[in-house]
Amino acid sequence: MGDPLTSVGTPSLLIDLDAFDANLTAMAAFAARHGVALRPHAKAHKSSEIAKRQIAAGAAGVCCQKLSEAYPFAAAGIASIHVSNEFVGADKIAMAVELASHTRLSVCVDALTQVRALGEAAARASVTLDVLPEIDAGQHRCGVTSVDALFALVDEIAAHDALKFTGIQAYHGGIQHVADWDARKTAAAHAAEITAHYVQALDTRGVRCAIVTGGGTGTVEFDAASGVYNELQPGSYLFMDGDYGGLGWDGELRWRHSLFVLSTVMSATRPGMAVCDVGLKGLAVDSGLPRSAIWIDAGTEAELSYVAANDEHGMLRAQSKPQEDVAALVGKRLLLPPGHCDPTVNLYDEYVCYRGERVADIWPIDARGMSR
Amino acid sequence: MGDPLTSVGTPSLLIDLDAFDANLTAMAAFAARHGVALRPHAKAHKSSEIAKRQIAAGAAGVCCQKLSEAYPFAAAGIASIHVSNEFVGADKIAMAVELASHTRLSVCVDALTQVRALGEAAARASVTLDVLPEIDAGQHRCGVTSVDALFALVDEIAAHDALKFTGIQAYHGGIQHVADWDARKTAAAHAAEITAHYVQALDTRGVRCAIVTGGGTGTVEFDAASGVYNELQPGSYLFMDGDYGGLGWDGELRWRHSLFVLSTVMSATRPGMAVCDVGLKGLAVDSGLPRSAIWIDAGTEAELSYVAANDEHGMLRAQSKPQEDVAALVGKRLLLPPGHCDPTVNLYDEYVCYRGERVADIWPIDARGMSR
Repeated sequence: MGDPLTSVGTPSLLIDLDAFDANLTAMAAFAARHGVALRPHAKAHKSSEIAKRQIAAGAAGVCCQKLSEAYPFAAAGIASIHVSNEFVGADKIAMAVELASHTRLSVCVDALTQVRALGEAAARASVTLDVLPEIDAGQHRCGVTSVDALFALVDEIAAHDALKFTGIQAYHGGIQHVADWDARKTAAAHAAEITAHYVQALDTRGVRCAIVTGGGTGTVEFDAASGVYNELQPGSYLFMDGDYGGLGWDGELRWRHSLFVLSTVMSATRPGMAVCDVGLKGLAVDSGLPRSAIWIDAGTEAELSYVAANDEHGMLRAQSKPQEDVAALVGKRLLLPPGHCDPTVNLYDEYVCYRGERVADIWPIDARGMSR
Repeated sequence: MGDPLTSVGTPSLLIDLDAFDANLTAMAAFAARHGVALRPHAKAHKSSEIAKRQIAAGAAGVCCQKLSEAYPFAAAGIASIHVSNEFVGADKIAMAVELASHTRLSVCVDALTQVRALGEAAARASVTLDVLPEIDAGQHRCGVTSVDALFALVDEIAAHDALKFTGIQAYHGGIQHVADWDARKTAAAHAAEITAHYVQALDTRGVRCAIVTGGGTGTVEFDAASGVYNELQPGSYLFMDGDYGGLGWDGELRWRHSLFVLSTVMSATRPGMAVCDVGLKGLAVDSGLPRSAIWIDAGTEAELSYVAANDEHGMLRAQSKPQEDVAALVGKRLLLPPGHCDPTVNLYDEYVCYRGERVADIWPIDARGMSR
């Protein structure tokens, strides 16, 4: 604590707390203003320290994407966890039942067999689970594709005393990343329309759908305004990344990049090129390479692009610099904003949090690697 | 131990021990037959259990790519570790000196400042380090680019009693992945020619170059035959991956896929598509998606392709199967061969080793995440 960033070992995963706090507060205020519950997706940060801060700022609970991911959050006392994904198998059912004895757990289903297995296991363990069938809101990934299939799930849930139908899960991941604001708005409206169709069908049948949960960072303004969702699940808003940062943002909200990988230049033997110590094992590249690099060493002015990632090497193009000039970059440090925050976070065991270029906190990434 | 693969939690990282043993033995025998030392690259497996097996099969030691990566290997008693990469900064120098007090450590350099810092720190700590300047064998990444620069490093090393010049590092990563066998042979010959140029210059100057280390899985037959290298650094041969598996292999060696991610189908609500529980957080996709999927459940016959990775979802195209048929796949398990082994390994904490579809061993991936 208090150490300058220039003394932190590299690679490290850094959080700029000023930007982080601004994002945390902005989303909490946005949800409150629009009268929707906020249940941030913890798969983005995988850290109970961050979940606690989201709850303190007003979140109703968190989402996890896997059952094992939920364990550290339950252990840290997060009282309401929604597993926004399907799971199958006796080991997974046992995990759900175990979690439900420690926290208020809700889970997603899209198959009758899973409802039956859950209902029987929960009854045997004398626990209660909230169950939200997932509907396919247009992503064509998981979720039921017809009202009849939804009704069948609702009926099966009702047949188990240990299960409680509390609403539906309706998330469309693909539309989060539509670059153009208006095109994203249209896509979000279409997903909301599909979702509304299911909600209305339940209503007509006399089934109360207390929770309609979904939405993400890219569509959160449209989702809140739709009147369809009453709970939102954004995750990446806390950090942002190259992918989200490259989208059009024409609404009321603005997000700041708060997540960076700290790297050191460790070799520079040829004109116009330098090599830093962060590659594929320190940066997820599925959504592209870091689009910019920020020097943290005073006085260093270098126009520089991260152009290729090897396993443990990052190739930096230092424009037309002669060899003497790039050699002077060796030992200098830079902040790289990841192209995709979620899988980058999953490579590290802790966040080094900083304010004003001084280390302010260390937060464990206690759900790292928890993919079961 | 003894459990069937159908009871192992998913996702899990699996090693087929029959294939693994065949690869381990084949490379050890190959190196012995050609009279070259084998120093396998531990960045591929990050496991001291595997390093011990490589040493037992005749390896001279292991390579690591980062200093922190070397720690678990030193702690496990691996007596000779070569860090085949540059590093910079007081914290890294301190790590090198600490490691050198526990194992025979060799390191790479390509800058005079690093040699000086190492020499001073090693002298203060009364340890000795073997130092191998890296030469740029054509990859244009790290390494000196002239004989004069190499001579300057050799002279500086000689000026420090705590440092010992033992040879040169000459690795070209890019040519490992040239698909065509003959084209790869030509590329390897060119890299060997560059390397030989530096070795001859040292010889002419009266400097003995005891170790010429380099080479990788893709070029190992050419490297051994070149007469230039006397130590080889292959890593991926133990596991293979989609990238290496897609290359032409026209020589004396054949490798088997021994590394797989075990996954479960957890949703299938639409015709021709299923969803499994392994995505970006369980599979590195930088070198492509899994090119095949092997069902481990008896009686399941499905032509199926892994077509997209979301964070925790793998999209499987099940050809023209109707919905009833894909629904029957839910709960079934499959083995996915990763596109790129190294960064996939870096996502897991342990290997589940199996023989004949029964769990035979669990090996910790004790250097996972060690990128400093």
